[in-house]
Amino acid sequence: MKTPIRAQPAADAVAAVIGTLARDFGDRAQTGNAIREQHGHGEGLADAALPDVVVFPQSNEEVAGIVRLCHAARVPVIAFGVGTSLEGHVAALYGGVCIDTSQMNRVLEVNTADLDCRVQAGVTREQVNAELKDTGLFFPIDPGANASIGGMASTRASGTNAVRYGTMRENVLGLTVVTADGRIIRTGGRARKSSAGYDLTRLFVGAEGTLGVITEVQLRLYGLPEAVSAAVCQFPDLRNAVDTVINAMQMGIPVARIELLDALQMRACIEYSKLDGYASLPTLLFEFHGSEAGVREQAQMMEAISKEHGGSAFQWATQPEDRSRLWKSRHNAYYAALALAPGKQAFATDACVPISRLADCLLETRAELDREGVLAPIVGHVGDGNFHVVVLFDPASAAERAKAEDIARRVSLRAIAMGGTCTGEHGIGLHKLEALVAEHGEAVDLMRTIKRALDPLDIMNPGKTVPGARQPIADSAC
Amino acid sequence: MKTPIRAQPAADAVAAVIGTLARDFGDRAQTGNAIREQHGHGEGLADAALPDVVVFPQSNEEVAGIVRLCHAARVPVIAFGVGTSLEGHVAALYGGVCIDTSQMNRVLEVNTADLDCRVQAGVTREQVNAELKDTGLFFPIDPGANASIGGMASTRASGTNAVRYGTMRENVLGLTVVTADGRIIRTGGRARKSSAGYDLTRLFVGAEGTLGVITEVQLRLYGLPEAVSAAVCQFPDLRNAVDTVINAMQMGIPVARIELLDALQMRACIEYSKLDGYASLPTLLFEFHGSEAGVREQAQMMEAISKEHGGSAFQWATQPEDRSRLWKSRHNAYYAALALAPGKQAFATDACVPISRLADCLLETRAELDREGVLAPIVGHVGDGNFHVVVLFDPASAAERAKAEDIARRVSLRAIAMGGTCTGEHGIGLHKLEALVAEHGEAVDLMRTIKRALDPLDIMNPGKTVPGARQPIADSAC
Repeated sequence: MKTPIRAQPAADAVAAVIGTLARDFGDRAQTGNAIREQHGHGEGLADAALPDVVVFPQSNEEVAGIVRLCHAARVPVIAFGVGTSLEGHVAALYGGVCIDTSQMNRVLEVNTADLDCRVQAGVTREQVNAELKDTGLFFPIDPGANASIGGMASTRASGTNAVRYGTMRENVLGLTVVTADGRIIRTGGRARKSSAGYDLTRLFVGAEGTLGVITEVQLRLYGLPEAVSAAVCQFPDLRNAVDTVINAMQMGIPVARIELLDALQMRACIEYSKLDGYASLPTLLFEFHGSEAGVREQAQMMEAISKEHGGSAFQWATQPEDRSRLWKSRHNAYYAALALAPGKQAFATDACVPISRLADCLLETRAELDREGVLAPIVGHVGDGNFHVVVLFDPASAAERAKAEDIARRVSLRAIAMGGTCTGEHGIGLHKLEALVAEHGEAVDLMRTIKRALDPLDIMNPGKTVPGARQPIADSAC
Repeated sequence: MKTPIRAQPAADAVAAVIGTLARDFGDRAQTGNAIREQHGHGEGLADAALPDVVVFPQSNEEVAGIVRLCHAARVPVIAFGVGTSLEGHVAALYGGVCIDTSQMNRVLEVNTADLDCRVQAGVTREQVNAELKDTGLFFPIDPGANASIGGMASTRASGTNAVRYGTMRENVLGLTVVTADGRIIRTGGRARKSSAGYDLTRLFVGAEGTLGVITEVQLRLYGLPEAVSAAVCQFPDLRNAVDTVINAMQMGIPVARIELLDALQMRACIEYSKLDGYASLPTLLFEFHGSEAGVREQAQMMEAISKEHGGSAFQWATQPEDRSRLWKSRHNAYYAALALAPGKQAFATDACVPISRLADCLLETRAELDREGVLAPIVGHVGDGNFHVVVLFDPASAAERAKAEDIARRVSLRAIAMGGTCTGEHGIGLHKLEALVAEHGEAVDLMRTIKRALDPLDIMNPGKTVPGARQPIADSAC
């Protein structure tokens, strides 16, 4: 846990806020230990830091009321989706009010003719797709976890489909945001493009709740493809699998998903998800979307490239239930990795590099893990140059943890040195503040200036995303 | 011309800046009337306002030096590409230093394996593609004019290919920017996606030089399609043509270009570009990119939809020279419109609406133009829901100009009322400040806060993009 650099809010200010929330929200404002504990951390490291109160608003106006209250009392505000963050985003480092968006769970409008919809921030991605079921449309961004759309927007999430459909950056058309002083604003619009003023939508997407609370999201949707097919291909070694990916990307094959599991991750998935018929070898999972002819053409090209690199014959998953099973096992890769060593915890790294450096970055990393004797499977959205090392360690051992942290840090720095980023999709949160500076240098000063301008009291998810954002004014008279 | 709300810089401060620039840049700092006149306006209305000096830097460091000088002296800085703005972006409302980027014209690196390149801001889009000629790659964004990449990034430009490849928002990976206090920063990176901190790249893309000067741009590139074909289809009336577009977009046909010319615009193009074999009817121009089979499939689907809506048989342009001729005539549509009435000038509107509202917006607009008896052809990137009305007026007639301005304003408001934007790709500049407020309401306050935080002295292209950005501090002690 980082040492707080911001003073805790005054205890009487917090008590007054809790009192007001209890009066206004009744049992939608909770202060019990269990619920505060549940909201003090995500799925990553147990860097829990408890909020003082958890409140469950249902509307923009309720969120704005909570934020105005906190603004007046200078009490921190932390927005909470479903708690799947891996980077400590929701830890209430300085206490304060956790805004749980789970009761903001309505799909507000679906515009089938325009391929867009508007949802409240607490709607999950599976819920979006369930509600779109009869429209012929779908929302493609799929980070694996059934995250909330607000959380996905806040961390600029992506996942398995991003190689074809882009990330939240490309697929959020507009937002409703409650600002740090409790105003409700709308950013963006429903037009496909606009040159009207600063791109506030893209500023809030990825801001991790440090500039305001996202309460509604206008999403871009896509027509369900006429045809879908999926295939599995196994390789004798990691380099061959990675070279296959690089080759496919450079040829511009519009594959919808191209996922890598290294031999250790494949073993974990075989054991955890009972995947029969596969070997513990480096493996690529593909999915193709398009017309019948288009999917056939893509798959043939992809199989030819794989064969050139020593890949096995494709094992096809043509039935929807086979595909579901395949992708479910991929989505459970993180839990499968944890199951390799019960009792251990994990750092999940998130390096993303230009595709030409993917083999270097991945193979150097794998070699280092083996040299260090660390149990650490690798899984990746390799079409984007993005991969995760799940570094397992014993939380009871300070030495193991320090070693795991050090390895994770080196993975970030290696990606940055190769022109890439320390985080392709998980965000900065609490754990990658130093890596952000290594990656962006003096540009971090501009981020700090923006944070201070839009949240001068430093109440919005303080201590996250932008290192050193606190300014003296926040704790003195203003 | 709007009344300046910012005080002119002190004459002695300007004189001192000019003296220093003359000393440091020699004949790369120019104060002659002709060159100042040339840099005081774009291609839009002749709202010229002359800078005091035009300087031609060649490097990031030189730009930073100029900006530091202006920052110390509180003298405005206006970046200039090739002067194709239609919204008064480069008018030096408060005088100051025009930074002409035409000598920043080097392609710095091309990473063929990663499908990206880095160019200086003054490189034009045609130059990028000329330098990529032997790589099998291309840069698709094509606003018609041979604009500079820095200018295109600053206005969030798009154009004919955006329906398939996106806009500058999606195709700029990173930037080098000189901040308002003269620091050189890098935003973004070369990874395809990143969740590392605030999205500064997207903040500067579209900021129209009001937050800093873009000096280098990292661009996303694409493999040249295996096959390309283009076709022309004519319709008995405008509604049929628009309905064809709406239908195609809703079916998700991945057409690369889908351009509309109304009957009047088609007549203008036939006359100006000597297009034989076409009638003065509402017309769609298509281009298809993909594999041989994919292009055939798209074209067949598109022709079937067009026929359902009363479209003519497709006239094909399969040879590259035929396609060039076709797109050149499309690119010259603005000049063709001006040639309809020699001596007149034009307001080009830039409405962009959700595709389901395109027919309403376009037909209501056409009916209003006819009712008002205004000569005003319509041309559009209709796949994005974006269209331009070129409202012609006699600059010598205050009444004609006022009427044209009023019509343009109503087009913006109509688009906004339909959930769209007043500008799909031209930007706000000087002419759409009021429309920005109508479109974004209270969100404009946040833009103002950001402007004041990143440019507290209000020296970066003052008076543009964000209305009321000036704060008292800028002209008093600080």
